[in-house]
Amino acid sequence: MKIEQEGIKQITEEKFINLFSVPYTDTKGVKRTWGMASRRNLNELLCSNKNEKPEAIVIASVHDSGCIVVTKEFRVPLGDYEYGFPAGLIDYGESLESCAKRELFEECGLTLLKMSWVSPPIYSSAGMTDESIILIACTCTGTPTSVNTGESEEIETMLWSQEKAKHKLEGGGEHKFGSKAWPLLLMFARYGEL
Amino acid sequence: MKIEQEGIKQITEEKFINLFSVPYTDTKGVKRTWGMASRRNLNELLCSNKNEKPEAIVIASVHDSGCIVVTKEFRVPLGDYEYGFPAGLIDYGESLESCAKRELFEECGLTLLKMSWVSPPIYSSAGMTDESIILIACTCTGTPTSVNTGESEEIETMLWSQEKAKHKLEGGGEHKFGSKAWPLLLMFARYGEL
Repeated sequence: MKIEQEGIKQITEEKFINLFSVPYTDTKGVKRTWGMASRRNLNELLCSNKNEKPEAIVIASVHDSGCIVVTKEFRVPLGDYEYGFPAGLIDYGESLESCAKRELFEECGLTLLKMSWVSPPIYSSAGMTDESIILIACTCTGTPTSVNTGESEEIETMLWSQEKAKHKLEGGGEHKFGSKAWPLLLMFARYGEL
Repeated sequence: MKIEQEGIKQITEEKFINLFSVPYTDTKGVKRTWGMASRRNLNELLCSNKNEKPEAIVIASVHDSGCIVVTKEFRVPLGDYEYGFPAGLIDYGESLESCAKRELFEECGLTLLKMSWVSPPIYSSAGMTDESIILIACTCTGTPTSVNTGESEEIETMLWSQEKAKHKLEGGGEHKFGSKAWPLLLMFARYGEL
């Protein structure tokens, strides 16, 4: 398949997220278009190369109590609370570790101790958007609090033991889980580590 | 926070994905709007309740050779190949097991043997979209082939041993991985199971 890069069109002029129409030639030589959403603007899309920057991080952290840090955050697109991990957009020029420290503190009031591993950029839903995030695993300490949370955010931080994580995952559809958090919660529930 | 459900506006009239503007009141009582992308139409969004249907499945499968099934698929929004798992939209009225069987066969030419576990609906990127998917783990058999793949899809199926998965994950940013596949590949690379 081949993208006609110069034919990409921006369909909307919104502030944070826009729709784009991307012309491409399929494997049989048929010309088609694909609709996608992106946080980037047309210029950034046109200049994109194969090593584009991830937009956000998601932080899987084990507290020094041995528990995993889980956030319950109101998400407007769901009209509901999502159970996941602390996460946030990477500020311009910010390092991954600085971003992880800042978000853990702002969203949960916790202090990052040590990074365990860092994923490459992974793609949230590649049929729909170019959004990519980096998963960071770390250890942390402190008492959870939401006093540092931004005004437009509503976040509660919980510490789940391995037993509690197991129990919560067995709850089936009781909670809405984020897709980056759920598989790592499964791993933590089974093996007690990240 | 509170969504003003009746004030949700559809900004675009595209076929597969649209932008919506969602008015809400934040924790301080300030009225704001949030932009989001969705595969659903305005009517479906307005009628949504807290138990909405997932749109797609992602299939983490262990082949009877002991290898994990990995797909390399061209993704227009990335303008590149994504390494992930077989996946697809759930047809109207289709059961999860039927959908998993169909997608494994269409995308990879493989036959589903036994379902291992099924996740609840998990949310791809809850700051951007209401898209949710279900992760299915299963075993499968057969010889990978792309002869059953749709015309607008370009998919190659690979079988990765635990050693190979470990090696591929250590490759850092060499491949673009899907966010649902990467954490489960990490689990498979470490523990040899799903």
